[in-house]
Amino acid sequence: MSEATEEEVRLEEIRLDQTIVEDEAELDIVADEVALYLQRNDLEAVRAFFEGQELADIASLFEHLREEDALAAFRVLGPEDRARLLGYLRPSLQVELASRLSRDELARLMAAMSHDERVDLYKALDPAAREQLLPGLAKAERDDLRRLAAFPEGTVGSVMTSDYATLLPILRAEQAVDALRRQAPDVETVYSAYVVDGAHRLLGVVTLKDILLASPRTPVRQIMDSAPVVIKVDATREEAAALIARYDLLALPVVDENGRLVGIVTQDDAMDVAELEATEDFHLSSNVKPFEDSVREASGFTLYKARIVWLVLLVFGNIFSGAGIAYFEETISEHLSLLFFLPLLIASGGNAGAQSATLMVRALATGDVRPSDWGRMLGREVAVALALGVTMAVAVSWIGIWRGGPQIALVVGLAMIVIVLIGALVGLSLPFIFTRLDRDPAAASGPLVTSITDVLGVLAYFWIARALLTIG
Amino acid sequence: MSEATEEEVRLEEIRLDQTIVEDEAELDIVADEVALYLQRNDLEAVRAFFEGQELADIASLFEHLREEDALAAFRVLGPEDRARLLGYLRPSLQVELASRLSRDELARLMAAMSHDERVDLYKALDPAAREQLLPGLAKAERDDLRRLAAFPEGTVGSVMTSDYATLLPILRAEQAVDALRRQAPDVETVYSAYVVDGAHRLLGVVTLKDILLASPRTPVRQIMDSAPVVIKVDATREEAAALIARYDLLALPVVDENGRLVGIVTQDDAMDVAELEATEDFHLSSNVKPFEDSVREASGFTLYKARIVWLVLLVFGNIFSGAGIAYFEETISEHLSLLFFLPLLIASGGNAGAQSATLMVRALATGDVRPSDWGRMLGREVAVALALGVTMAVAVSWIGIWRGGPQIALVVGLAMIVIVLIGALVGLSLPFIFTRLDRDPAAASGPLVTSITDVLGVLAYFWIARALLTIG
Repeated sequence: MSEATEEEVRLEEIRLDQTIVEDEAELDIVADEVALYLQRNDLEAVRAFFEGQELADIASLFEHLREEDALAAFRVLGPEDRARLLGYLRPSLQVELASRLSRDELARLMAAMSHDERVDLYKALDPAAREQLLPGLAKAERDDLRRLAAFPEGTVGSVMTSDYATLLPILRAEQAVDALRRQAPDVETVYSAYVVDGAHRLLGVVTLKDILLASPRTPVRQIMDSAPVVIKVDATREEAAALIARYDLLALPVVDENGRLVGIVTQDDAMDVAELEATEDFHLSSNVKPFEDSVREASGFTLYKARIVWLVLLVFGNIFSGAGIAYFEETISEHLSLLFFLPLLIASGGNAGAQSATLMVRALATGDVRPSDWGRMLGREVAVALALGVTMAVAVSWIGIWRGGPQIALVVGLAMIVIVLIGALVGLSLPFIFTRLDRDPAAASGPLVTSITDVLGVLAYFWIARALLTIG
Repeated sequence: MSEATEEEVRLEEIRLDQTIVEDEAELDIVADEVALYLQRNDLEAVRAFFEGQELADIASLFEHLREEDALAAFRVLGPEDRARLLGYLRPSLQVELASRLSRDELARLMAAMSHDERVDLYKALDPAAREQLLPGLAKAERDDLRRLAAFPEGTVGSVMTSDYATLLPILRAEQAVDALRRQAPDVETVYSAYVVDGAHRLLGVVTLKDILLASPRTPVRQIMDSAPVVIKVDATREEAAALIARYDLLALPVVDENGRLVGIVTQDDAMDVAELEATEDFHLSSNVKPFEDSVREASGFTLYKARIVWLVLLVFGNIFSGAGIAYFEETISEHLSLLFFLPLLIASGGNAGAQSATLMVRALATGDVRPSDWGRMLGREVAVALALGVTMAVAVSWIGIWRGGPQIALVVGLAMIVIVLIGALVGLSLPFIFTRLDRDPAAASGPLVTSITDVLGVLAYFWIARALLTIG
């Protein structure tokens, strides 16, 4: 037992230092010791070990246990903790654990889980396991599961939860507190409560703070906000996350087309959605198609599929650059020193373009810049691009003089200004064009901008070279 | 008055449809009408107009009013609403409004603001305005302002707020509810309360839910979580946001080196920090240095400064590509058709590299992949890159046969496989190397990866060409 206490202190320290998130080696050691207790069947030590730990940290530990040890450790936990722990595990580990539980154990676990997390688990199970599970659940739970599972991925319906607190408008403040106290064990939050009529239509939202501040006899109807921010169930999950961020909401009520309350989205779920969306935008920004798995867990084939389509499409875009070079072959063979500057010039155009594109893509995603701002942004971008282009032209002109004399320097300097300007304008405009065409602007950055700029840059460079060098 | 009512309905509809966020033209019309009421001095109509609106929406409207109208509209609001509205306005508009208020008005406004928002406003004021303001504030508020303002940008101290609810450990649950009721008007949240001793050391955290669920006579000491997740005041704001996301916290307590409670960071502030961090990473990913302003409001000079350094650095990187071409000038002049494939090959390497880099940068930022995972990721990446390279080699070989015959096709196909592999390995490894060197891995993507891949790709292509074509 003294050993267990030592360990407790150790795990505690790990959490406080937050190294548990980063230090995999340390976690492996802790996991080995937990496994040792489990093999000795010293469940009391494991229980003492878990006590006082945050469930998110125990979940990290589970990722480092072998399957059979994870299952044994899972059974050490009480029903409430089991349900909450599952929400912190990655989907594949959830399914592994769930599929090794007895049908009864699984049904009890599902009943204790929050409604949004259990539908995610339900959807991750294979169809046979789902059918096995359903008879073990109460009818209300079956219906809830089937209903939530039916919302398409990406909609508000797919991220909302149905375990929210409700109040009737005629309740007085003191009665409302009691009502919330009764509902507390079964709902996601008691800090926002939803006032509904007999048909479950949303009449208003009331916070626990406002209830506490009201005099005990005031009816809820008079305390509630009767024009709360709401969202329709078929809106996108990004829209829900954006509303929660914009209005600093703890939870956002979700209604159907008849104004009936069907669920809520909480702030922590909105944070997860915002993170997912940012990840998708990041991936799209280098033309990786979004995929479901985590990068760590994704199979090679998943990554191949997410990457190959754009890579091949871009290759065909770059054929035009090659064709441009072929078209100017005569000029090039006369002045082979021009080739020295080719990578430098087209890369600079691509880099400047990628910068512009990224600035616009992110500003459009956060709402900082709106689609109607294109004209306003364009004027400033021309000025910035000219300044960037002139600075870089000065930088490369020196190399131009050194490699090929003043004429080449002039060609390279001029080409640099033109190419940076082209890159910046393509990079700035493409995200707006994509938005106009109802495509995700995040795909309009990085490689795509670079490819377009490459083609135009090759043409501009050799065209300027031919014009100036033939005269000279 | 009937006009005002019509308007109310209109604004209401705008908010419910959420078009207020997007439709600037509509907002302009509403702003014009509000301005008209203000010029008629019909303040009652404006007040009715604002009633029932969310403050975040009124803030959007303010961005569309002229300065003098904004000030007049601001004065229509009550002191509480003024304080909260200010938190939704962009910093420059906050300063504009604040600087037009009388010293007394400003002091009253600051007293009503939440502590984290008022310190942001205080820091945005120019030094003269700060000195003017301080005498109007109570001593406790002056001290609080100075203390919060002293934390360096980017630390937890710079985003935390000091208006949190505290409880003594000996209070019973029913007394704790009363204590929270008394503190409610002045604190950021009553849903988490912080249990402190006489020296203000943090003993534990208790949620209002747990207090309500406890029996009324239980002392707070027995209800509280005595080993809560905490953060040190000098940690980074990203670490605070990451802890809040990981542990699904409503608020995170901040302590000094002696364990004394100095502030809290709330979930909505964590969302803002996460968004800011994602924006910085986006910008870095195309080598734009982070800057303070919004993209919409940033000056051309700010953008120039944020972009020029990396652009020039990358130019010098690309000189090596040019040098590589110059080195192989003989091979090139003998087989000018090789040039046709140059942009296509180096772009493909750059694109594959940018994909790998983005996948790793984002996975490292979200904690999906850890720095110690490099080896594990490398094995999979080699397989994926070979598959990508072979697919693309097949695609370009056909063009190779068409443009230059089977020998050229062989050269181009082989070069494609090698170059994609180089790009992928550089893209995968650079973020890990940056992490190891304590640099932000986000800077290790896009243009930088492309530049390195370009140099290696040029060398690989012409080296393969010289080797194979000389034999033939």
